[in-house]
Amino acid sequence: MLPKVLVVGSGGVGAMMALGLTTTGKAAVTLVVRSDYAHVIEKGYTIDSVSYGHIDNWRPHNVVRSVHDAAKNGPYDFLVLTTKNIPDGPLPCEDIIAPAVTPGKTTIILVQNGIGIHHPTIKRFPENVVLSGVSLIGSSNIDCHVNHVRKDELLVGAFANPGLADGEKRASDAIKTYLDLAQTKEGFNLVEYDPDPNRTRWEKLVFNSVYNTITTVVDQDITRCLIVDGNELVGPAMDEIYKIAASDGVVLDPSVKEKYIHIVDGIFYTPSMLIDCRKGQLFELETILGNPLKIAKQNGLDVPILTTIYWLLSMVQFRVKEQRGGIVLKKDEYRGKDSFNAPELFRLHQEKKP
Amino acid sequence: MLPKVLVVGSGGVGAMMALGLTTTGKAAVTLVVRSDYAHVIEKGYTIDSVSYGHIDNWRPHNVVRSVHDAAKNGPYDFLVLTTKNIPDGPLPCEDIIAPAVTPGKTTIILVQNGIGIHHPTIKRFPENVVLSGVSLIGSSNIDCHVNHVRKDELLVGAFANPGLADGEKRASDAIKTYLDLAQTKEGFNLVEYDPDPNRTRWEKLVFNSVYNTITTVVDQDITRCLIVDGNELVGPAMDEIYKIAASDGVVLDPSVKEKYIHIVDGIFYTPSMLIDCRKGQLFELETILGNPLKIAKQNGLDVPILTTIYWLLSMVQFRVKEQRGGIVLKKDEYRGKDSFNAPELFRLHQEKKP
Repeated sequence: MLPKVLVVGSGGVGAMMALGLTTTGKAAVTLVVRSDYAHVIEKGYTIDSVSYGHIDNWRPHNVVRSVHDAAKNGPYDFLVLTTKNIPDGPLPCEDIIAPAVTPGKTTIILVQNGIGIHHPTIKRFPENVVLSGVSLIGSSNIDCHVNHVRKDELLVGAFANPGLADGEKRASDAIKTYLDLAQTKEGFNLVEYDPDPNRTRWEKLVFNSVYNTITTVVDQDITRCLIVDGNELVGPAMDEIYKIAASDGVVLDPSVKEKYIHIVDGIFYTPSMLIDCRKGQLFELETILGNPLKIAKQNGLDVPILTTIYWLLSMVQFRVKEQRGGIVLKKDEYRGKDSFNAPELFRLHQEKKP
Repeated sequence: MLPKVLVVGSGGVGAMMALGLTTTGKAAVTLVVRSDYAHVIEKGYTIDSVSYGHIDNWRPHNVVRSVHDAAKNGPYDFLVLTTKNIPDGPLPCEDIIAPAVTPGKTTIILVQNGIGIHHPTIKRFPENVVLSGVSLIGSSNIDCHVNHVRKDELLVGAFANPGLADGEKRASDAIKTYLDLAQTKEGFNLVEYDPDPNRTRWEKLVFNSVYNTITTVVDQDITRCLIVDGNELVGPAMDEIYKIAASDGVVLDPSVKEKYIHIVDGIFYTPSMLIDCRKGQLFELETILGNPLKIAKQNGLDVPILTTIYWLLSMVQFRVKEQRGGIVLKKDEYRGKDSFNAPELFRLHQEKKP
């Protein structure tokens, strides 16, 4: 019997992960599809891929409506999580995947941005191997039409987990198995071992913690921000990421910054966080910026630029939460000169956790 | 013959200034009204005032369409400038008022927010007395309906101008004269001498440089920002204003911060800068935040929170400028990996000065 892989999250990344795993023929692939479920059951996906070409009516082996439903097809050898990671949102990732994780068995691969994202997962599933997946891909899924424009590369490595008995060996075995399951022999994709996920993630944060955040705060694409910036904000903010990474044991090469300063040369590029925000969707504030700042604080670093951006971005996320109805301000509560106390209200809203 | 006063800017503040000066009967008042000119000539203003009561069809002595037209009624003893002050906009204040300023004669009163606003005026009109006017008022003018909800207070003092011969004496005389012209005997308004305009302006900046800017960057009213903030951003940003003010010779009392932290208790208050931004209008970025940062730089201060907010706010102002057609990005110019150079483009746009 083929190893069972569950892909949670059917956006541009998740759909392409499922396609790759299905193409190798080495795994039984279940994909969780929420809002598009009826469409996918009936007609499947239309794929336009730079690697796989044009495919009509594509479906993985199993399509299910929820992680809960997926559990019935388990137990799973691998669970590949490709949703956004929003710990301050209504349903943290651990809660999303819990129904389909078999303790001690299912290897969880977090194909998500940010740093420190494995801590809540490891805490919740202490007997399971948790792997890092860093995806480099250009892919969107709009109404079951997947448009894939940049070759799908996935770097798979182990998150440090000293508490797991025989953890290194188990992680290493799981990675080998997954690379074999997921790498297409035709070379449609590239699935590789990542010997140092922490470094890989810090490098990506030089881009994400700076561009995603700044553009979302001011509602402008990267190029427009850079035109105004004149090296006064973006560069120094990247330097702060270097500083935090170094305190976390990762000395980043200067070439990373140089690369990202020029990566959008010639195009007006809108990062995914700003796209989410413009759609009125919650964005990955905590894993992209909140967690780096927690590490800075633990290590006694002063990073005022990123800290300022973090609080401003929190105000923007609050706006989105309120727009979505996740926060309801009872205006009458705030009337009266003496009754208003902002920090107290903040705690109130934190406890509600919209 | 009565002294001639020209009021430039017919928003909520300008209209009330003109009303006060007209009410005293001691000045011949000319008001510049641009877009509402026909309406005011035909029907005048409707005033609903907490002090003056309800007035229909009110007009000052003269209503003109432009400062250029106003010049024909001159020469003026006083020019009261109540427009927004946007040095990075299409027409800096000096250019706006120039046609109606008589060298050596007209006293210019800048009823505008911010610090350092007198420098370009003094440079342009070195023989004229330039006074500071700090207005405390709640007044709006929408389609010639003036709604005035808080008693009109104006603090008038002298800007330092060591280059002007006999400057202190002339400023002192001009202030005395203006207080007499503008103070209604009924006490409808309050026009007072300000012995230390620099201090008055720094105090007001504790509010404006922090609340106006932060709310405009994140597009949220003050209360919503404070709910999220939890004393992590607003307070420390105010502390930076204290630091810059101190380096400028003004030691602010801790009570100013305490007052402004609680000034919007119980209401959801949207500052004027955010209102302007939401209307797609340019806002007072430079006088409110750019100038304080120039002073910080001159005095070797590190103020990273306000600096970060400044660059973000510059990106927002760029967005507004582009929306208004003041900046036109020729996208083709930015194509091609090597041709793109953000700082260079920035200089280009600065030179264009939209």
